[in-house]
Amino acid sequence: MTIYGDKRSGNCFKIQLICALLQIEHHYIDIDLLKGDTKSPEFLNKAPVGKIPIIELEDGRVLSESNAIINFLARGSALYPDDSFVQAKIQQWQFFEQYSHEPYIAVARFIQHYLGLPEDRRKQYERKHPPGYKALDIMDKQLAKTNYLVGDECSTADIALYAYTHVAHEGGFDLTRFSHIKRWLKQIEDLPGYVAMNY
Amino acid sequence: MTIYGDKRSGNCFKIQLICALLQIEHHYIDIDLLKGDTKSPEFLNKAPVGKIPIIELEDGRVLSESNAIINFLARGSALYPDDSFVQAKIQQWQFFEQYSHEPYIAVARFIQHYLGLPEDRRKQYERKHPPGYKALDIMDKQLAKTNYLVGDECSTADIALYAYTHVAHEGGFDLTRFSHIKRWLKQIEDLPGYVAMNY
Ligand SMILES: N[C@@H](CCC(=O)N[C@@H](CS)C(=O)NCC(=O)O)C(=O)O
Ligand SMILES: N[C@@H](CCC(=O)N[C@@H](CS)C(=O)NCC(=O)O)C(=O)O
Repeated sequence: MTIYGDKRSGNCFKIQLICALLQIEHHYIDIDLLKGDTKSPEFLNKAPVGKIPIIELEDGRVLSESNAIINFLARGSALYPDDSFVQAKIQQWQFFEQYSHEPYIAVARFIQHYLGLPEDRRKQYERKHPPGYKALDIMDKQLAKTNYLVGDECSTADIALYAYTHVAHEGGFDLTRFSHIKRWLKQIEDLPGYVAMNY
Repeated sequence: MTIYGDKRSGNCFKIQLICALLQIEHHYIDIDLLKGDTKSPEFLNKAPVGKIPIIELEDGRVLSESNAIINFLARGSALYPDDSFVQAKIQQWQFFEQYSHEPYIAVARFIQHYLGLPEDRRKQYERKHPPGYKALDIMDKQLAKTNYLVGDECSTADIALYAYTHVAHEGGFDLTRFSHIKRWLKQIEDLPGYVAMNY
């Protein structure tokens, strides 16, 4: 399997973390987001949406969308158990991530950390904070009730939400009051095989 | 099972369509989006994200996120086959829907069809069109190659993307040049058990 990704992207980090936790061997091809590598004809031929991460299997089949990829890689493991309701709950948190978390928290981080918070993006940046805090609040309330997002075991839902939550401060989010989230971040960082995002 | 939804919402229509195609019996509770029913304490207690659709099982368990719900309801049927790569591809298209399609096509429709395109939303509305057309283009290219989005059989990926694509004109999108999408819309409308969105 080959992974195409950029080490600075949280969506790509999800795949790296799953591969580390599950010891999945792979090739890695670096795609430079800021240089526009996702818009090259070769890349668009593999992934018409023009976004990383993607994976390419030995037989040439390609899969895109970070959360679809981690569920696929974790099939048969404890991170994506073979129970339909548990799988549905995992997907619920992952759709929440893509719809109500990532568009605020990842984008605020991109504007602050990679673009250096330019004046003409400041308004957009500030608009990201209230819905981003709302997403963190929803996570914190769940994590007050359960160890991980879907019950007491770690799943690919946690990997999906860990990716941008653990770097939320780089987008100006203050995690101080989210004590359950802080406990949960540490639990994930203590998992055997855990690797840090390397950017 | 009880469904909480609003008949005007495409995300809610996904659940209605799956129930019709698979003949799933259910209760239905109407939640009036425009009256703010999703923000009532009772509703937020069931669904902290404050969005419809949600389903509640007989034992009280609740599931939110339209695409997680349709995959769960279609488990064991031909619409969500028991093959990990097929399930991954279905999820790929559904994450694409939530990230790169719905935020443009559904929101443009909401502004035009439900708010009547007020002057102060016109700029936002116009900004939705280029990425919305990009999403349609990606779908059309896939549908030139395969009958449905994930190969030759209809799956919950098609139900997810049908919901807002078939009413895209209500958001100002012109589907004329997307001949494969038009063929595919008709295929879905010809499925046994199909019901129209009733709004
Ligand atoms: N929904 C996608 C989002 C992926 C995404 O937005 N990737 C960014 C990097 S983090 C990208 O490739 N952006 C390039 C572009 O949009 O042009 C996923 O979860 O994989
Ligand atoms: N990602 C969610 C989106 C659901 C959604 O945005 N629902 C809208 C109606 S279409 C809603 O309940 N909006 C109320 C609100 O956001 O306050 C899903 O797929 O179910």
